[in-house]
Amino acid sequence: MNTFGNRFRLTTFGESHGPAVGGVIDGCPSLMELDMDFIQKQLSRRRGDGVEGTTPRKEADQIEWLSGIKDGITLGTPIAFMIRNSNTQSADYDRLKDLFRPGHGDYTWQQKYGIRDYRGGGRCSARETVSRVVAGSIALQILNSRGIRINTQAHTPRKASSNTSCGGTIECSITGCPVGLGEPVFDRLNALLAHAMMSIPSATGFEIGEGFRAAEMTGAEYRDPFNSDFSTQTNHCGGIMGGLSNGMPIEFRVAFHPVISVGEDIPCVDMNGEEHLINIEGRHDHNHVLRVQPIVESMVALTIINMIL
Amino acid sequence: MNTFGNRFRLTTFGESHGPAVGGVIDGCPSLMELDMDFIQKQLSRRRGDGVEGTTPRKEADQIEWLSGIKDGITLGTPIAFMIRNSNTQSADYDRLKDLFRPGHGDYTWQQKYGIRDYRGGGRCSARETVSRVVAGSIALQILNSRGIRINTQAHTPRKASSNTSCGGTIECSITGCPVGLGEPVFDRLNALLAHAMMSIPSATGFEIGEGFRAAEMTGAEYRDPFNSDFSTQTNHCGGIMGGLSNGMPIEFRVAFHPVISVGEDIPCVDMNGEEHLINIEGRHDHNHVLRVQPIVESMVALTIINMIL
Amino acid sequence: MNTFGNRFRLTTFGESHGPAVGGVIDGCPSLMELDMDFIQKQLSRRRGDGVEGTTPRKEADQIEWLSGIKDGITLGTPIAFMIRNSNTQSADYDRLKDLFRPGHGDYTWQQKYGIRDYRGGGRCSARETVSRVVAGSIALQILNSRGIRINTQAHTPRKASSNTSCGGTIECSITGCPVGLGEPVFDRLNALLAHAMMSIPSATGFEIGEGFRAAEMTGAEYRDPFNSDFSTQTNHCGGIMGGLSNGMPIEFRVAFHPVISVGEDIPCVDMNGEEHLINIEGRHDHNHVLRVQPIVESMVALTIINMIL
Amino acid sequence: MNTFGNRFRLTTFGESHGPAVGGVIDGCPSLMELDMDFIQKQLSRRRGDGVEGTTPRKEADQIEWLSGIKDGITLGTPIAFMIRNSNTQSADYDRLKDLFRPGHGDYTWQQKYGIRDYRGGGRCSARETVSRVVAGSIALQILNSRGIRINTQAHTPRKASSNTSCGGTIECSITGCPVGLGEPVFDRLNALLAHAMMSIPSATGFEIGEGFRAAEMTGAEYRDPFNSDFSTQTNHCGGIMGGLSNGMPIEFRVAFHPVISVGEDIPCVDMNGEEHLINIEGRHDHNHVLRVQPIVESMVALTIINMIL
Repeated sequence: MNTFGNRFRLTTFGESHGPAVGGVIDGCPSLMELDMDFIQKQLSRRRGDGVEGTTPRKEADQIEWLSGIKDGITLGTPIAFMIRNSNTQSADYDRLKDLFRPGHGDYTWQQKYGIRDYRGGGRCSARETVSRVVAGSIALQILNSRGIRINTQAHTPRKASSNTSCGGTIECSITGCPVGLGEPVFDRLNALLAHAMMSIPSATGFEIGEGFRAAEMTGAEYRDPFNSDFSTQTNHCGGIMGGLSNGMPIEFRVAFHPVISVGEDIPCVDMNGEEHLINIEGRHDHNHVLRVQPIVESMVALTIINMIL
Repeated sequence: MNTFGNRFRLTTFGESHGPAVGGVIDGCPSLMELDMDFIQKQLSRRRGDGVEGTTPRKEADQIEWLSGIKDGITLGTPIAFMIRNSNTQSADYDRLKDLFRPGHGDYTWQQKYGIRDYRGGGRCSARETVSRVVAGSIALQILNSRGIRINTQAHTPRKASSNTSCGGTIECSITGCPVGLGEPVFDRLNALLAHAMMSIPSATGFEIGEGFRAAEMTGAEYRDPFNSDFSTQTNHCGGIMGGLSNGMPIEFRVAFHPVISVGEDIPCVDMNGEEHLINIEGRHDHNHVLRVQPIVESMVALTIINMIL
Repeated sequence: MNTFGNRFRLTTFGESHGPAVGGVIDGCPSLMELDMDFIQKQLSRRRGDGVEGTTPRKEADQIEWLSGIKDGITLGTPIAFMIRNSNTQSADYDRLKDLFRPGHGDYTWQQKYGIRDYRGGGRCSARETVSRVVAGSIALQILNSRGIRINTQAHTPRKASSNTSCGGTIECSITGCPVGLGEPVFDRLNALLAHAMMSIPSATGFEIGEGFRAAEMTGAEYRDPFNSDFSTQTNHCGGIMGGLSNGMPIEFRVAFHPVISVGEDIPCVDMNGEEHLINIEGRHDHNHVLRVQPIVESMVALTIINMIL
Repeated sequence: MNTFGNRFRLTTFGESHGPAVGGVIDGCPSLMELDMDFIQKQLSRRRGDGVEGTTPRKEADQIEWLSGIKDGITLGTPIAFMIRNSNTQSADYDRLKDLFRPGHGDYTWQQKYGIRDYRGGGRCSARETVSRVVAGSIALQILNSRGIRINTQAHTPRKASSNTSCGGTIECSITGCPVGLGEPVFDRLNALLAHAMMSIPSATGFEIGEGFRAAEMTGAEYRDPFNSDFSTQTNHCGGIMGGLSNGMPIEFRVAFHPVISVGEDIPCVDMNGEEHLINIEGRHDHNHVLRVQPIVESMVALTIINMIL
């Protein structure tokens, strides 16, 4: 449900325009000193601070730590945190109350639950990823201290203009992992990474190593011959053999569709199925992939930490 | 670990050349009459019976039902089944005992467990997918009885010859699903499907709807406007909005790399890192994607049934 | 870990004298109108308001709802709540910093985590049961609306005086349950209830139906003959047959040891194993079993709701 | 459901008079050499071989290992095993087809599933505990190799005669456990042990340390003062403080009701609620508590191993 992981377990909560978003981390080792600046830095990247073409919420995402930490040191007990939604201009959203926007969760969530917090997407809003980034930043610190690095690069093939948004891809490379991460047979490392990536709002594709190009290769082209130290001469498989990490860099790519509702004349329908063209302003990204980078890093970290601990 | 699902829960066991492979299904509803012919038919497709370019095991995959069924009717108790590995020519594999093949799990499993059943890949062999197909075929029957259909199509861009293998893709379409399948926020339907698909041996990529093409689209191009009956005019999103099914066909595509070891001169290394060129005969597919189709169908069925029950 | 249940899942957090205690409920049905007065009433019973021989915290346990509720109606999304620890006189506890009290978790938690919040028992304090009562009170409302009632009665064989505490038992009866609650074979209803009850601080025993008396009975004495409507003439088994509820009242009893540290001359040891006799004042119950009653009711409700939903 | 544990995870299957009973162990460490004689010895105790007043099945419970073991060494992959039900005289049971016996699961299972294998209790039969003993015996070996010992003693206050059965209690002591086993707050060690014990057929009560006697003690009587080496002078708490093991022997007691159906004139009802007095012969224990001992040991081992690995 709203929980990710089993050993380092994150449960998130919060609607975009409710009182707060936040989470509970269960399983974080005790006696860790947290680098709070790093967490804020990741949150700042997620907000898109300083990125052209994004209109971040003004609020600074002030984390309030509710438990699990004393004098900056983790206790081994659940770490609860929250971030208040100070900037909740609900009035902006009142006209969306009875409308279903295309491509959003408005319609499907209404059908599933019979109710939804329509303000800013409610629970089905990228706002919930704040909690992922807080927890992921803690996981990243633990991984870094063990020599595991997670690097991402964003690519946006098309450029967004004043009234359009565009999608993009994020490449990720994980180095420093020990051999053998992953669990056969259903929880292969590539399956867990795919799960984590596709859980990010707007993700539409995942490929490991050669990915879709592998479908056009022969076995002789695809296989990665070993060197005498068990590294491989090539890395077509993206660092995973038989579902387990092989010590080479783990390399994958994720596709993201563009933000759907920017600018004018978005064709919505109401509860009766009647069409309404509306102009959606507010906090919407024309080019959101840069903001997704720290979310990818966080979800990768949350995936890997569960296999390391 | 070796368990998939929570309500309709499959636990599998078995090494390729051990006494048997099989599984336990926990959570199958009681009072179901099973169509055993259908299950055998799916197993036959998985074996590649009649498919050119595949050399299936001769054995007929005779299922032995150990529990959970009485007079052909399910009892609601765990359904255990096994299929003996009658055709276990271990001698063939003895020379592989101390070798690590490229692209296989030989090296990574040895490192993880300190031991492996090297015969035919042991547990890390496509042989374990037999159990998935048995359980998946039961799930398919339940879904079919509720009007949910799963269709797949295989594509192999290159043709395999006598000494090469090639990869391919499988397209899948699921129709008849109710609106609202999937669980926010970490278990979105697309995330669960990606997890299931990437757990299949040799899977390297997953995309839902437009997938990687979505990265090159604008928001206006990508969004799917509603019709007045809440169906959508296009289906770029592949039937999933806000992580939940929207009632349209759920459409995705999976990439598979080619079978790695066919023919001559496979460059292996031994425990000391020394290279050996070997000729791997035996049961190896030059074009295995057709055989993967029933596995895809099974894993999709196991994913969906867990949300339906 | 700090999570209870799978369908109606409660994750709790908080140290006794940290910023707050609270929890996240995942899986509460949408469209429920919550009776906030009932929740406060249960919290008041847990505080021991008006009970002789208890010295409740002055604070009123003001619940702050962080998510999952809009205009008093549940959204189907995670319900997060917290209660600030306003009354945290840490100075009182500073002298306990390096001492291990007998019978408390001081020593075992220090050994497990290498650190502990010593103030008021930190996480290992009955304070955490506040979160159970909040969530349990929501579960109780759902159960009540379906005709399921949970009744408890407390018994304290000995009376506590100014400088002693005493233990007691709580009897519980659940009526209105459908036939068939419980899951074979490891999660029999009695096993789940025992788990839930023994998770309550100071619980030392659990018996269902005749309990320990059954060990002295013959089969003919113990068995409960059916009436023609499938009710039973006696209820020695406490409403559970073959691990499943049989429609009769479910009846069990839980034993609780006395509060350990009241009054003078508690023999503690420090980190070096040296003994210190100390006088522990503060909020300690001479007779805490009455305060445990709503906790029992809450844990029973959380157990049953997971089988009802 | 039919799974116990998370790291050393046992899933069991099988009806008493179906083709076989068995299980799958997932998470057993690799490279373990199994003592098969010990496993058979525990099965022999469970059968009641040589115990007066029990009429064991003739069959020798021959284990067939299906996977996870090669040359007597564990592979780290799922260990599947089964024991065929060779002695299935179904004819004996045919007259029970439409009858509900008092105190058994006949009625409740029929109501829950709408069907049941009535022969010998089907899945709701002590026969399923064979699988627990096989897995538990493996867990016991691992624990023994780490210096953890589990001892049980059976007590039967009344003696069974030719036509009566009687209940009893089993005392258990676990020594050699490290400090800190158990998980706060819902999975305290006593809660996990209570869950495991109450999942054993015919268990009716559980108490840790002083158990129900603690309800009549004062805090000063109950608390266990520390020695200077952090052992305690008394062990009223049964080796668990704050939900975690404290290094002292873990001591608890379990009550079992008598076998319900022995001898003549058992008052059953049929589907219409009409009473039938029947004489139940077959394999039924007049005094089954001795046979339960290895089951208790197994379930304790399965509980502890999950916290040790």
